[in-house]
Amino acid sequence: MEIDYKNIKVIGFDADDTLWVNETYFRAAEEEAGRLLSRYETPNKIDQELFKMEIKNLPTYGYGVKGFVLSMIELAVELSNGTVSNEVISKMLNIGKDMIHKPIELLDGVEDVLKALSKDYRLIVATKGDLLDQERKLEKSGLIDYFHHIEVLSEKQDENYKKLLKHLDIKPSEFLMIGNSLKSDILPLVNIGAEAIHVPFHTTWEHEKVTKKETNGADYKTVNSLTEIITFLK
Amino acid sequence: MEIDYKNIKVIGFDADDTLWVNETYFRAAEEEAGRLLSRYETPNKIDQELFKMEIKNLPTYGYGVKGFVLSMIELAVELSNGTVSNEVISKMLNIGKDMIHKPIELLDGVEDVLKALSKDYRLIVATKGDLLDQERKLEKSGLIDYFHHIEVLSEKQDENYKKLLKHLDIKPSEFLMIGNSLKSDILPLVNIGAEAIHVPFHTTWEHEKVTKKETNGADYKTVNSLTEIITFLK
Repeated sequence: MEIDYKNIKVIGFDADDTLWVNETYFRAAEEEAGRLLSRYETPNKIDQELFKMEIKNLPTYGYGVKGFVLSMIELAVELSNGTVSNEVISKMLNIGKDMIHKPIELLDGVEDVLKALSKDYRLIVATKGDLLDQERKLEKSGLIDYFHHIEVLSEKQDENYKKLLKHLDIKPSEFLMIGNSLKSDILPLVNIGAEAIHVPFHTTWEHEKVTKKETNGADYKTVNSLTEIITFLK
Repeated sequence: MEIDYKNIKVIGFDADDTLWVNETYFRAAEEEAGRLLSRYETPNKIDQELFKMEIKNLPTYGYGVKGFVLSMIELAVELSNGTVSNEVISKMLNIGKDMIHKPIELLDGVEDVLKALSKDYRLIVATKGDLLDQERKLEKSGLIDYFHHIEVLSEKQDENYKKLLKHLDIKPSEFLMIGNSLKSDILPLVNIGAEAIHVPFHTTWEHEKVTKKETNGADYKTVNSLTEIITFLK
């Protein structure tokens, strides 16, 4: 499929694992949680239970580090039958703070792509997670001047993108989304008639995975690296 | 001062304690924290220390319930010298979940005002706090159809409002902000040349209080109740 880029007015970039590394830090934090709770359960069980706790709490807490830490603490109390030490709780609070203050590691070619595209298109960041957290990352990334603004969505489903387009006052065919998550950055856009380019990242959170059936027949482009995008969008 | 409402294109409403009750629930949660930690300190000291902890963590966590709960847990560990029970930690997690799922209690006249103004102006919600949390409250409030969209700001300072106006593609003189916090909803708008109307709420968080000196000479209108606004904006 060819994207009719002449129509495109706004390009939305996902942030975490599209512009910069993120999932890697969550994986490391989960492993650390496994070590902190290792007297109560096997690493595998802890990992599974932490995922379940996060999903259970997702409608309440939403995405981002703070909800992750609250779920980790809730799991610690639960798995330890109410006997986990204050020291472990403190360490979990610190894991969260460390994640929030991690330096930004840009993915390959990001700056070149933004530089090239920002001349011809209005670029925005469209991301889940905490607003403050994402604003801070954008600031630290040095990329902020390439973007018109940042949109934080509480979810990335069809409805959320429809609201975004209404808010941007553009038609679906005038919007292109670029991101690493098929579930969040690609399929909803295909559903609402917008354009989407998939740039896979090596690690995908369980919650973001989709089955082959869900992508079957969906009309989107996949590139191996962000820099490929320049060649056909210029 | 008279607001030149002929120029106004967009009206921004603060949400918490402007459209609906919020601060009251934080006060109740703080009192509950005081009771949970009463074996370690006096209620007054706990209250002061919790405020200090929130302010210390504000640059990391931002506004909203999740950061509040994380600060409350950190304080519990600290004040108890690392001996607080898992039961107290659990109760604190539940305080947060209860706050997030509280029903919405609209303030007097809100719906009448929105109904009247939405015919002539584009209305938006401009709020701090968690995006998911604020979206959920807006949904539960039944007010969502009056608003073009919701803007969650990580801070409400001059710079954040400047970005918002850029994003809305309007001039400062075309924007009117309505809210209960002098510090967040009024003074920054006066500073950047936009319009602002202050609708005080009976309870103000310590962090949102301003001195008489800070408001001295600032050009904004104050009304006792939201419904007064209709009379001079219609």
